[in-house]
Amino acid sequence: MTGRDEFDLIATHFAPLATAPGALGLRDDAALLDPEPGTQLVITTDAVVAGVHFLEADPPDDVARKALRVNLSDLAAMGAAPVGYTLATALPARVEDAWLTAFAAALAEDQATFGGTLLGGDTVVTPGPLTVTVTAFGRLAAGQALRRDAAAAGDDLWVSGTLGDAALGLRAALGGLAGLPEADRAYLLDRYRRPRPRLALGRRLVGLAGGALDVSDGLLADLGHVCAASGLGARVDSAALPLSTATRRALDGDPSLVAAPLGGGDDYELLFTAPPAARDRVREAAEAAGVAATRIGAMEVASGVRVVDSRGRLVDIGDRGWNHFRDAGQGADGK
Amino acid sequence: MTGRDEFDLIATHFAPLATAPGALGLRDDAALLDPEPGTQLVITTDAVVAGVHFLEADPPDDVARKALRVNLSDLAAMGAAPVGYTLATALPARVEDAWLTAFAAALAEDQATFGGTLLGGDTVVTPGPLTVTVTAFGRLAAGQALRRDAAAAGDDLWVSGTLGDAALGLRAALGGLAGLPEADRAYLLDRYRRPRPRLALGRRLVGLAGGALDVSDGLLADLGHVCAASGLGARVDSAALPLSTATRRALDGDPSLVAAPLGGGDDYELLFTAPPAARDRVREAAEAAGVAATRIGAMEVASGVRVVDSRGRLVDIGDRGWNHFRDAGQGADGK
Repeated sequence: MTGRDEFDLIATHFAPLATAPGALGLRDDAALLDPEPGTQLVITTDAVVAGVHFLEADPPDDVARKALRVNLSDLAAMGAAPVGYTLATALPARVEDAWLTAFAAALAEDQATFGGTLLGGDTVVTPGPLTVTVTAFGRLAAGQALRRDAAAAGDDLWVSGTLGDAALGLRAALGGLAGLPEADRAYLLDRYRRPRPRLALGRRLVGLAGGALDVSDGLLADLGHVCAASGLGARVDSAALPLSTATRRALDGDPSLVAAPLGGGDDYELLFTAPPAARDRVREAAEAAGVAATRIGAMEVASGVRVVDSRGRLVDIGDRGWNHFRDAGQGADGK
Repeated sequence: MTGRDEFDLIATHFAPLATAPGALGLRDDAALLDPEPGTQLVITTDAVVAGVHFLEADPPDDVARKALRVNLSDLAAMGAAPVGYTLATALPARVEDAWLTAFAAALAEDQATFGGTLLGGDTVVTPGPLTVTVTAFGRLAAGQALRRDAAAAGDDLWVSGTLGDAALGLRAALGGLAGLPEADRAYLLDRYRRPRPRLALGRRLVGLAGGALDVSDGLLADLGHVCAASGLGARVDSAALPLSTATRRALDGDPSLVAAPLGGGDDYELLFTAPPAARDRVREAAEAAGVAATRIGAMEVASGVRVVDSRGRLVDIGDRGWNHFRDAGQGADGK
């Protein structure tokens, strides 16, 4: 890409995504945003790198969705509604126009689904792997953010959706889980490639949930963050962990995968706490958001996370929790 | 870097830069920003890649400054004051702690100099070149942004500082300009490595300037953007172009470098238009901002940019304008 090509590329592929007037058609030095009075702006940024956060061979639409959705998932975990995003793409010279067409089409679809539009960006060449950095903006009523540090002792611990699917999906993408039915492999792969940002649930948890975050590094690691931020410990009931049918079958077929739901990353489900008195309201919020919410334990006056079985006996989780899956090709990923 | 290392790295190097309460110590899913009533938020993003936008061997503090300042320059070109920024770094595994220490120290210095603090970020590993993506936020009174499309026919054309230094600095960094005095080479290299975002001037041009942008792709290319956005043409007086002593000496020594001031990128000076009646006020604004502003031509009812010599004769600029220098190792860089 020469400089001139870059302007063509932006005009062709990205300008159509920048429908907000403040984006100035991606033709000015910067974008303008008019926050509504009484709202806070929520800002998050995440980068994904080919070969680290997605596979080189992943289809362009999945790369686009992953780059955008891991950011939208952070907005969900704050209880915010998407407003827009900036997009910085570092492209190897070999990336072709058809790839970009599919990449931009997926962003257009996701914008329509989740809200927000492209506000600005930068397109550069790289001699390295394709790297996509998104900075996403959300809004919420001032002071209403779902914070990690607001968990209370005795709070229930909840998680949305199911756990472990994405870690097993990565395993499947790398050629593993060969014994699993094809439909299960496809389901898990989809869960790895296309995170579902739980925006509708996040917004409904405002005023209801205490500590909240999205599970990106694995349940135990991320729960550790909630505990540290809130100065508490947590108990996880291993029998209560919500598993998809595909994950259940995979674990039945290979018990060595048992750590996936506790330690596998990339689930992008919401982990949150709420007082026991709020159980019905949490269930109603989840139902209205169209996603399951499962009570998996409780916050404790303690330090650290313990996992117990259905008889209350401590489960030895060793350190297999998440390094196990991280070593399968995942890099370190921030907030 | 393993995942655990990443949290240490953020806590050690980056959290101290995140002094705004809304950054939540970089420990939550996202940052919170409370825009002031009556202000607009200005958002820009730029990525820099080792080997494309800076040299692999460049010192870490220069990499930090370049990554931040090219974004601050976009805020300057909108007339905005910095509020904060997010930072996404894709680091090769070989990057050591001492490198990061120097990188973060330079960001701390630049924050103190220019305003704004770190609001959030992501730190990932990459098998490719070091890549730093910054998204910067500024604020200005609603409706006051300096836009590219607000130039009027008959407006004077102005530029801050001097032109061509950075392109020659890149040449020097690559081993060229061997005949130049060492002090000149050092000056030009500094101009390449450490852009000066013209924030003070940009703010003072609000209400005064028409079309405005920062010169990153080269004067002719960027002036072309102003012309296209405003539906006008422009005349550039070649004899009026502001040159540093070092650049003047370099051009005297090697006439083949004559295109540098017209086409060399990375100057990050402000290019803007203003009505002739505002000349004194522009000069006062520049003086107050501590930077030179030079009148280099005018906007015309025409299409395209023409360069004329002191007798008004058309200068043949061919297409050497900026590809010449871009080919020296510069990539395509967006807004």
